[in-house]
Order: sequence, then structure tokens, then C-alpha cells
Amino acid sequence: MDSKPNAIVAQSGGPTTVINSSACGVIQEAQKSGKIGRVLGATNGILGVLKEDLFDISAESTDTIEALKSTPAAAVGSCRYKLKSLQESKADFERILDVFKAHNIRYFFYAGGNDSMDTADKVNKLAADSGYELVCIGIPKTVDNDLACTDHCPGYPSVAKYVATCAAEAGRDTEALYTTDTCTILEVMGRNAGWIAAASGLAAKTPEDAPHLIYMPETVFSFDKFVTDVRGVLKELNRVFIVAGEGLKDENGNYVTADTGAFSKDSFGHVQLGGVADMLKAVIEKQVGIKARCNRLGTNQRSAMHFASLVDVNEAYLCGRMAVRYALKGENGKMVTLIREKTSEYKCTTGLAELRDVANGEKKVPPEYINDSGNHITDAMRNYVRPLVQGQAPIRIGQDGLPKFMRFERKPLEKKLPKYF
Amino acid sequence: MDSKPNAIVAQSGGPTTVINSSACGVIQEAQKSGKIGRVLGATNGILGVLKEDLFDISAESTDTIEALKSTPAAAVGSCRYKLKSLQESKADFERILDVFKAHNIRYFFYAGGNDSMDTADKVNKLAADSGYELVCIGIPKTVDNDLACTDHCPGYPSVAKYVATCAAEAGRDTEALYTTDTCTILEVMGRNAGWIAAASGLAAKTPEDAPHLIYMPETVFSFDKFVTDVRGVLKELNRVFIVAGEGLKDENGNYVTADTGAFSKDSFGHVQLGGVADMLKAVIEKQVGIKARCNRLGTNQRSAMHFASLVDVNEAYLCGRMAVRYALKGENGKMVTLIREKTSEYKCTTGLAELRDVANGEKKVPPEYINDSGNHITDAMRNYVRPLVQGQAPIRIGQDGLPKFMRFERKPLEKKLPKYF
Repeated sequence: MDSKPNAIVAQSGGPTTVINSSACGVIQEAQKSGKIGRVLGATNGILGVLKEDLFDISAESTDTIEALKSTPAAAVGSCRYKLKSLQESKADFERILDVFKAHNIRYFFYAGGNDSMDTADKVNKLAADSGYELVCIGIPKTVDNDLACTDHCPGYPSVAKYVATCAAEAGRDTEALYTTDTCTILEVMGRNAGWIAAASGLAAKTPEDAPHLIYMPETVFSFDKFVTDVRGVLKELNRVFIVAGEGLKDENGNYVTADTGAFSKDSFGHVQLGGVADMLKAVIEKQVGIKARCNRLGTNQRSAMHFASLVDVNEAYLCGRMAVRYALKGENGKMVTLIREKTSEYKCTTGLAELRDVANGEKKVPPEYINDSGNHITDAMRNYVRPLVQGQAPIRIGQDGLPKFMRFERKPLEKKLPKYF
Repeated sequence: MDSKPNAIVAQSGGPTTVINSSACGVIQEAQKSGKIGRVLGATNGILGVLKEDLFDISAESTDTIEALKSTPAAAVGSCRYKLKSLQESKADFERILDVFKAHNIRYFFYAGGNDSMDTADKVNKLAADSGYELVCIGIPKTVDNDLACTDHCPGYPSVAKYVATCAAEAGRDTEALYTTDTCTILEVMGRNAGWIAAASGLAAKTPEDAPHLIYMPETVFSFDKFVTDVRGVLKELNRVFIVAGEGLKDENGNYVTADTGAFSKDSFGHVQLGGVADMLKAVIEKQVGIKARCNRLGTNQRSAMHFASLVDVNEAYLCGRMAVRYALKGENGKMVTLIREKTSEYKCTTGLAELRDVANGEKKVPPEYINDSGNHITDAMRNYVRPLVQGQAPIRIGQDGLPKFMRFERKPLEKKLPKYF
């Protein structure tokens, strides 16, 4: 059965609405190719590889695999385990290769952000150095949309569609109440890049429409300017709807708010953020003297399968399929990218970028997408995001009227190596 | 033109996804009846009446009126202006009647919660006492589902569907990350009644599924019990997804958390709540020692038109239509109610309840809908809510890929009275 080389599909970092669509693309294309033996899932990403905690996705039903396209989050399992340099995490990298060798894994398809592309790149280098034939192909994934070398990242279009819709809807709620509840702050994700906050601007088709003010980490946040902005909108409309990215920074580059709790940093050393909306609410109530409300969508924004972008689901699936095709064509050490064609109608094809270029890059919202006042977006941003949020991805609905998601049966692969940890 | 008596449609209190469907029902049925002259909108509810701030809905296009069914919040305009007793707010009640007389308004259709039914009841009594022929019919509206005399309230089924879906989706997000982010708390609305929190339980089809724990205001909240509950689920699943109603109360009936800011009470004297999830997060991080995340949907849960319940939109529309039919049949001083037929397949018809009975009542989640541990729901609750969340209400999608909502042109009615305030 294992005469053909096997493949691993793994997911890393924060889940998205469509990372499972990419996995579906990998699995279906690998099965169709006839050149790959089994597709194995690494339970909880690279942790699953380290622990030799693998399961046989090829043994799952075709319907389960197809249903990946309408299931949010990370069905294979994700983690935030951080590998450092080849020197510092030498044992981990060697263990990964040992597991690959033990199960005749010659293809490593890794969906994640720049940290994951860094890991894939290093595994690949170690394999080459030790003479083990391995093909590593990265698949872009992040709601933050901050990966270099690609027009956009699968996961982003769906969160963009959802957040813009939430702004439009809650904006109507704010508009409905004339004398009270006249300020709403919608807090959205985005640690260092304001792509998600920026997307909400698509909902503002007229000056009446929410959001009226958008704050992104790319623009230095000033409390004085903020209060002036809020007062200005209130004067015009008697209400104000604000979208704030979680990672707003002051003139010194420090986050204007940071969780100081016991878990204020994740295992990547990233500061855990939250509470921007609550802080802005306090500022408004104190300095402007009106009541404010906070909506914090949290992980619901990155898992809103019930209103995901059809373009996103299709492109994520395409990235998964192309990862396999590129691998079988002899490409290696690269991430699949999305290339927006210069056509009047939106069209996206795929390309490749070196894993190391993705690992070392970061793409922020460019200045020409942000208005001069630093509190809203320009038409250039609208033109960028509008094609991405088109169409509604099909979902399965159960008898209870709610979306129906799949779970793998997870037939575990027999372990061949001693326990690692 | 005003030979036939006119009608007013007004909306009150917190908006819902379907209050505009009820307005649509009133308008279309009134126009069809041939017995009502113009349908007037009271801009921002009873405030619009007091200010004689009325607009002619009959002058709006049929398409605008039809689009009410797919527009969330309160298109006519709502407010939180509180009328007290006939004695205390005598001037207000008399002004309302003066405005009605000035514009030959003989029908008052008021969509709101129990405070609004109280107002409608008092206006009605004053009209009767002064010999002015007026018909007041209430239309139930509240996401909180706490109105007496009706099986459920329009607005609730949509928030139930949305919150249960959000729990299912964010639950998968929590499930995806094995070693971190293993606790998510979803905070939902519900000041005194836990109906919204309870609805989320529909998403828990297997013990794996979120939510694992649900806390409602109906059950006394104990921090010790909470920590024990959380530890118990973590032991089984290595993760825990919690839904918490905003109005949790301790053994003394005090809210376990209350906003102490400048706007901690609204004009109805209700304490403004918020921060339950943040408080539970702090308890978990300190006492259980795991990181927790908070999702606070805020006003997005009551405006989520993009995934509203078809049953809800249809029933809200029915309530609006029936309000007019009952009025024309000679009913007065009553609220339209929803009656669930005792059939195996779900069927709902309408009835009537005295406004004063609704005004004085409050319907909480009954004990038989809550499990013995006070931290989840029973099958009785599932059977209650399941039929309500069926179907997805149609929406209009614009070229930008986002839902498209209507706005009235608001042709203002000429004022005939001196300025009131």
C-alpha cells in the first residue's frame, strides 16, 4: 500500500473559514493524481508531526472530505507551537524528518502564515542537507491578509465580507435609536495590519452608512484626533459608528492597549490584544459625553462559514489543488500565491513564491488605501476588496436549521517511533 | 385625501432583525384594506409623535416598502423615551392625543416590548376617556423573548439562529487549537431572561460540540460552581466553550457584573450590562490557569439580517398584517400574539392579549428548559426553539457583494401644532 510516497497535510496558527477548503483541494488533487499514496493528517499541525500523531485522511469518506469546503476552523487540527532556528530547535527539526522517513512522507503541504512558511522552509533545507527527498509546498492562510508575495490570502475575503456586513447591519442598529446608543464601536482582528478593519469600509456607500470612522494599525493613533473625529461625525449625523483594529499603536509604536493578564503573550511571543473597543468607549463617554457600545466579534469573524465568500472558498480550494500540482511538477520550497490578473473583470490565477521570501515579508495596508485623515479608506481599497467578497459559499443545513459541519473519524496511524514528548 | 382615517406605525426600544417585517405587514395590509387613508411613520417612535415628526410612508415606493423585509434594525426609527403613569406624564399623553387628532390618526400600531405595550395601553385609555375614537394594537417585538402571553416574540428566532450558529462556528475554532486558546466565552444579550443564551444550546448536538456550558440569569450564578464546571469540561475535552447571558445574577439577585460608567443606566432605569465574558475570562485565567478568549456579539446579534430565520421574518410580517386586520375587525387595546398549534409539524397562528397583561408580565426560561446542573438546556428547550430557527430569510445583495438595505425617503408631514420640545 505504501509503495507510492505519502503526503502530509497540516494546518497552523489561527483558523480561518476556508483553511479546510485548501485541505480539501490538497486531498482531492492528491487522490486524483495517482502519484501519491496516502494523504495523512497531522493532528494539530507540526505538534502532530512531532508526536507522530497522524491519521489517515485517505480512509475518510469522500463525503467527509467534500464537506471540508463548508466547515470552518481547522478540521485537521492546528496549533501555535513555534519552531525557532535550525540550531535552537535542532531536535524538533530532526524529529520531523524522522517521522517523515518512518512513514515514507515525501510531500509536506503546510497551510499557514509566515511563521509556518519559515518552518516549512527549514524542514525543507534540513531534508536537502541530509539527502532525504522531500517536497515542501506552502499554502497561504491568514485572515490578517499580511503575507508577502500574494495579492491576498485565503481566509481574508471571508472575514472581509463578514466584517463589512456586520458593520452595515450594526450600523443600521445605531441609526435606529435617535437619542441613545448613538455610538457603536466594532472591534476587529488585525495585530499589525489593518486589512480587516479596512474591509469594513466597503459598507460605507453613502455618508449615512456605517462605518463612519475606521482606525487601522498603519496610522499612528492619537486620542486627541480621535475625539475630534468623533465630534465631527456626531455633529453631522447625530451618531457615529467606529471600526477599530485590535492593534492600534501610538506615535512610539506601542499598542494603545494591551492585555496585562497572565496570558498576555502567546507562544510566538506575540502580545495578546483585546479591549481596544472598551478603551475607546471609555474615552468617548468621558470626553465626548455620549454613551457608547462595543461589539467584539472575536473568533466569530474568522469562523463565519454561514456567510463566507464564495470567491474565498473557491480560491482556497484552488490553492490546495495547485499545491499538489506544483509539487508533482517538481516545484519545491515554495508557497502558492494568488495573482490578480489585470483584467476588467476580476480573475485570479496562482503562482509561486520562495518560502523564505514569504517568511521574511509582511504586507500592510498601503498608504494609498487609507484616506488623508487616516480614519477611513479610499476607492483604491474598495476596488481591491470588492471582488474578493463576492458570492456566498454554499453550506449544508441540518434538520435543526443550523449549519452542518464535518468531523474526521481520525483513524490513527500506527506509531513507528519512540515517544518524543 | 384624508377623508379616510390615517394610521401610525411606530417602533420602540432595541431594534431587531425583523421589526421592519412587521412594519411592512402593517403598511401593506393597511394599503390593501381600502379602509385606511395614509400610513404615517413616527420618526423615532413615540418621540416622533410627541415632536409631530411624522412622515408619509404611503408616499414611499412599493419596492422600498417590500425591502423592509430584508432590512434589519428599525427603519421607521426607534427610541428609548420612557412615558410614566398617566398622572406623571400627563402632558406627554395629552400631546400624543393632540397629534393624533391633528392628523386624523385613528389607528396606532406600536411594535415594541412590554414598556411599549404599557404606553399604548395608556394612550388608548386616555383616548377613550376623552371620547376620541382610537384603535391601539400592539405588535410583539423583542430579541429577549420575555413578553408574556405569546409563545415567542418576533425578533427572537433570528437572534436564536444566529447565536446558535456563532456558537457552532466559534466552537470549531476553539476545537482547532489544541494547546492554546482552549477556552472561549461567547457573551450574548439577555438582561433578565436567558432565552438567547439558551438558544445557543441547539448547536450542541454531541458532547464534542459547543457550547459545553451555558449560563442564564434564571439560575443563580456561583463562581465556585462555575470553576468546577469549567474544570470538568476541560478534563473531558481539553477545551471549553461557554455561553453567558449578560445578566447573570448572584444569590442576592444582584448582577455579577455591572457597568459603573457614566451611562450605566438607560432612560428606562435599566442597568446597562456588559463585561460578563471579560469577568469570566479573568476568573478562568486566575483560578483555572488557562487562557480564555471573549466574543461579544453586541448589537450584531440583533441585526444579523444576513442569516435571519425565515420563520421569524414570516411571522413578524404576519403579526403586522394581523394587527391591521384585528383593528379593522373592531379589536382594540390588544397585542397580537403568536400561538403554537399542537401539531406534530410546527404551525403558528395569531391571537390577541390585553395590552395591560403584556405590560405587566415577563416570561423567563422555565425550569424544565434548564438542566439540573443549571449549566445547559434540556430537550424541552431544544424542541421549543428548533422550529423557530428554520429557513434562511432572503436578502438582497448589492454589486459590492454585501447585503443591500432600504432607507425611507421620509417625506415629512406638514406640522399643524406648536412645537412641543
